Parts: sequence; structure tokens; C-alpha cells
Amino acid sequence: MRLIESVPNFSEGKRSEVIEEIVNEARKIDGVWILDYSSDPNHNRSVVTLTGIPEAIEEALFNMTKKARDLIDLKNHSGEHPRMGATDVIPLVPVMNTTKDECIELSKRLGRRIGDELSIPVYLYEDSATSPERVSLSNIRKGEFENFPSKIIQEAWKPDFGPSSVHPSAGVVAVGCREYLIAFNVNLGTDNIEIANKIAKAVRHISGGFRYVKALGFRLEDRRIVQVSMNMTNYRKTPLFRVYEVIKFEAERYGVPIVGSEIVGLTPLQALVDVAEHYLKLEKFDSSSILEKRVLDFISREGE
Amino acid sequence: MRLIESVPNFSEGKRSEVIEEIVNEARKIDGVWILDYSSDPNHNRSVVTLTGIPEAIEEALFNMTKKARDLIDLKNHSGEHPRMGATDVIPLVPVMNTTKDECIELSKRLGRRIGDELSIPVYLYEDSATSPERVSLSNIRKGEFENFPSKIIQEAWKPDFGPSSVHPSAGVVAVGCREYLIAFNVNLGTDNIEIANKIAKAVRHISGGFRYVKALGFRLEDRRIVQVSMNMTNYRKTPLFRVYEVIKFEAERYGVPIVGSEIVGLTPLQALVDVAEHYLKLEKFDSSSILEKRVLDFISREGE
Repeated sequence: MRLIESVPNFSEGKRSEVIEEIVNEARKIDGVWILDYSSDPNHNRSVVTLTGIPEAIEEALFNMTKKARDLIDLKNHSGEHPRMGATDVIPLVPVMNTTKDECIELSKRLGRRIGDELSIPVYLYEDSATSPERVSLSNIRKGEFENFPSKIIQEAWKPDFGPSSVHPSAGVVAVGCREYLIAFNVNLGTDNIEIANKIAKAVRHISGGFRYVKALGFRLEDRRIVQVSMNMTNYRKTPLFRVYEVIKFEAERYGVPIVGSEIVGLTPLQALVDVAEHYLKLEKFDSSSILEKRVLDFISREGE
Repeated sequence: MRLIESVPNFSEGKRSEVIEEIVNEARKIDGVWILDYSSDPNHNRSVVTLTGIPEAIEEALFNMTKKARDLIDLKNHSGEHPRMGATDVIPLVPVMNTTKDECIELSKRLGRRIGDELSIPVYLYEDSATSPERVSLSNIRKGEFENFPSKIIQEAWKPDFGPSSVHPSAGVVAVGCREYLIAFNVNLGTDNIEIANKIAKAVRHISGGFRYVKALGFRLEDRRIVQVSMNMTNYRKTPLFRVYEVIKFEAERYGVPIVGSEIVGLTPLQALVDVAEHYLKLEKFDSSSILEKRVLDFISREGE
């Protein structure tokens, strides 16, 4: 079975009936599974986690974007989270038997349809970006909905698809392929936030650490310990075990032990297989040797 | 989705058309997936690996046993592997959302049907055994097909189901629930077989080691190294990482490193999750946080 994951963000976090109508568009499509969705009223934003076969995911995302365009008016929207569109961003992630290239193709097909058929300007971002300044989502979103009319007329910010003017109520949308993001937190046996901050600095990309790690130190007040909280933006190239081991030996320097860790949300099977493979020094292990994976492959082949 | 695995052994390893006819009985049943099958002509024996929903597995195994009864005549069978029946043994393993108790129930239902409808005497073994001397398969099989007529008339060897005399061509069969068996081999950076033997002795149950480990030392001639070759008969109670770490520190005593390991055949997802969980000190990790597992649960729910 070929699977793409998508985590579209919608600029509505209060009116649950609107969220339901948008999510329903995905429910209607065979071959799409809604893994999770949640709304934040303060952010006035909802995040939906979908997975499915590529063609079905494309259909579901197009229909959800159309529904969001019809039901959300950014002129009346306020919330803590920055936003530029009714459907604000559509990340696409190749998760099973799909490649980055296929995923980029999908982002372009979907972007073209949203631009042409829904009259919403589309920016390709991350791995789909058509120029270096469009790689970062926050760079595209800078100025937000309110300031986009003056941004979009600049040559550098001509949309990749769709009209050259902001949709009056639905704004603009970013669509792009990226790697799976794993939220991985490591807990330290100390209440000294300085140590968590120093270790976060040691492992994160921006200050000289691993390329695909974003990290911050946090206090867990109730447990009186501190945490190195991370976004692992490419677990294939910067694997969990390697970062874990570096945190361990950095912490040892302060006489502090690792007391636990957590993965928040979903993780691809391969990220955990990589951990087991490393510590057991497994030779030539293939995830198709995992019973459940084998069954999934069988079942999904029947469905094709 | 509820899944049972079964690895029935048939006393035919040469006539491929016979094997195909037996395997076809499983292919006909919806909700059963044939993960693997292989034949050994020297052993004159075939092993089929099936998984599926319990009711479907029961149906498939009954039909395969019936077909084997009709096509295999033990009076004309010879091979290196000990055997007592056309279908020699039917192990049942609870692998997903099924319990040992359900599995034992299934072995009894299936055993009763084989006994009553196919007139083959049935012995329940391992977790399904009705007396201590029936726990071990090799104990039941002692004497093999040729000597079973005199064994079966002893009070201690009265079958659990079916007639009190051996089926003239199909013999007798053992049916039972057991834990998932993982074949796990650890390679040592030495060609000294004595070290592998000593470490095998240290970890295996019979000589004072872990309860659910069977182990032997082996030479890997082509690589000029030695191996501790293990059957892990209950990875939940004796996990892979614990045995691996003991092998590591025993090997250190001889100045020998672990250079690799392998899992032969299939492994349940949980056995690897346990490894990752241990080494990363993951707190409250649940395998339903694994994307592929979540998808499998979704897909299989649709099918119900």
C-alpha cells in the first residue's frame, strides 16, 4: 500500500460545526483515514491528520480546501497563531511506499487545481519550493492575510499557481512536501533549566548541532525536572538514537542522568525500527519482517 | 483487528502439487493471509505460516488438515524429521488483539472438530496441554507414527479428542497454543566456538539462564566468526534487549565484541518496540502511536 500523510491547518478553531463540515469532506473519500483532528480556540485554528493513498488524499485535500474557502472568511478572523489563508498550509509527507519525488508531484497537481479551480493563490514550500526564499513556511506567511495584497504583487512573491491577487475571503495557501516530523522529548534528572538549555543548544541545528533537530529547554514543573524538547524534522538523516546518545553524554558532563523520554503524537514505524536496529546491531533487518507490516501489505494489496 | 498466527507442519516435502493443494485450502478462506511456506525434501516436511482472524484461521486449518489426511499416507513416508501425523503439529499463536485464553479455546474447538469429523486422534500441547507430560511436543511425538498404535492404548496417552486408535494413513496430530517464537542470533567477533558455547550456556534456561531462551553456539564458517543462536520462546517475559545485554557483558569478559545480530523470519512489532522503548527510556509508549499500526487498525475495522 502506498501512503501519503497530510496535516492541513485550517483557520477556524471555535465553530465546531465548520470543522466538522471540513473534516466530513475527507470522511467521504474512500482510501483516506482521519487519524486525528483537534482545534485550538485561542489560536483559532484546527489541525487535521490524514493518511491515505495518494490519489484519495489529493481528492480529500482539494475538497476540504474548497469547503474551507466557502465557510471561513479571514476578514473576520482573529487568533494568536499567524495565518494567511482559510486553509493555511497543506504539508504532504511520504510515509509508506511513496517517494519524496512522488510527493512533490502530488503537491504540484494539488496546488494547480486549488489555484485554477478555487481561485486561491498557491505557494509551494519546503521540498516543493521553487525558490530558496519559499522553503520556509514562516517566510512565506510573513505579513499574514492582512498584508498579503501588497506582498503578492511583488515579482518575488508571484504565486506558483492561481490568480495574482489574494482571494478576498480565503487568502492564500502554502502546499508542500516535507519529511515526517517527530516530536521527541528527553527528560533529565535535574530541575536546573540551564542544563536543558545548554544541551538543547548542543544538539540543535541553528547553534551547531544536528541538521534536522530543533530543540528548546523546558521545565516540567509538576515533576520538578527539565526537558530537552525537540522536533526531529528528518528521522532518516538524523535518527533518534544518535541524538539521544549525544544528549546522554552531554548530560553526563553535568552528572545528570536521562530519566525518560517521550514521542508526542504519531511516529512512523521505521523511526523505531532504526532504534532497535542500532542498539541490537541488527544486520540487514527489513521492516517487512514485522508481522503487522506484512499483514498490512497483504490487506492493502487486496484492496487494490 | 484480531489476529491469530499458525504455523502448521505437514509431512510432505517433495510432491509440490500436494503442498499446493493443501495451501490452496487456506487461500480459499477470506480473512486468512499466507505469509510464507517452504518445503524441505530431506525432512520430507513443509511448514506454512498463516495469519488471520480467529474464525477464518480455524476454518483454514480444519480444511488443510482434511486435505492432508486425504493426500498424505504416512505408511509410505520417510524423512529426517520426526513425525506422527500427515498434519504433524498445529501451533496457534495470539499475535494481535487476542489473548492466550482465546487461543487455547480455539485450539480446543479445532481439536474437537479434527477428532470428531476427520477421525484423527488429537493431542493438545504447550499452553493447551491437559497434563504436564503433554506440554512438550517432542514428548508427545516420541515413538513417532510407527510406534503410536501401542502408545495410544496406554491410559496416559488417551487422546484429548477423536478416536482411541491411530488414523491408518494420517496418524495423530498435536494442536496447541504457544507464544510467538523469535529466532534471534547474536554474532561474536571471534572464531573461538568455546566462547559462543559458554555464552549460550549462560543465557539459556536449561543451564541456569533466562526462562524463555534456548541457545546453542554455532560457527559461521564463511565469516570466521561464531554465533549464539537462540529461540526466544516468550519475548514478552524474556525480552530481546535483556538477553542481548547479558551476552554483551559475558563476551566482554573474554575481550570479545558483539559484531552483529539477526532476527530470522518474522517478528511481532511489539518485540522491536520493546527494544526501542528500553534504550530510549520511553515513557508510556503505546504501539498505537505507530502510524502503520494505526492505519492497520483503521483498515481492519472497515472490513468488519
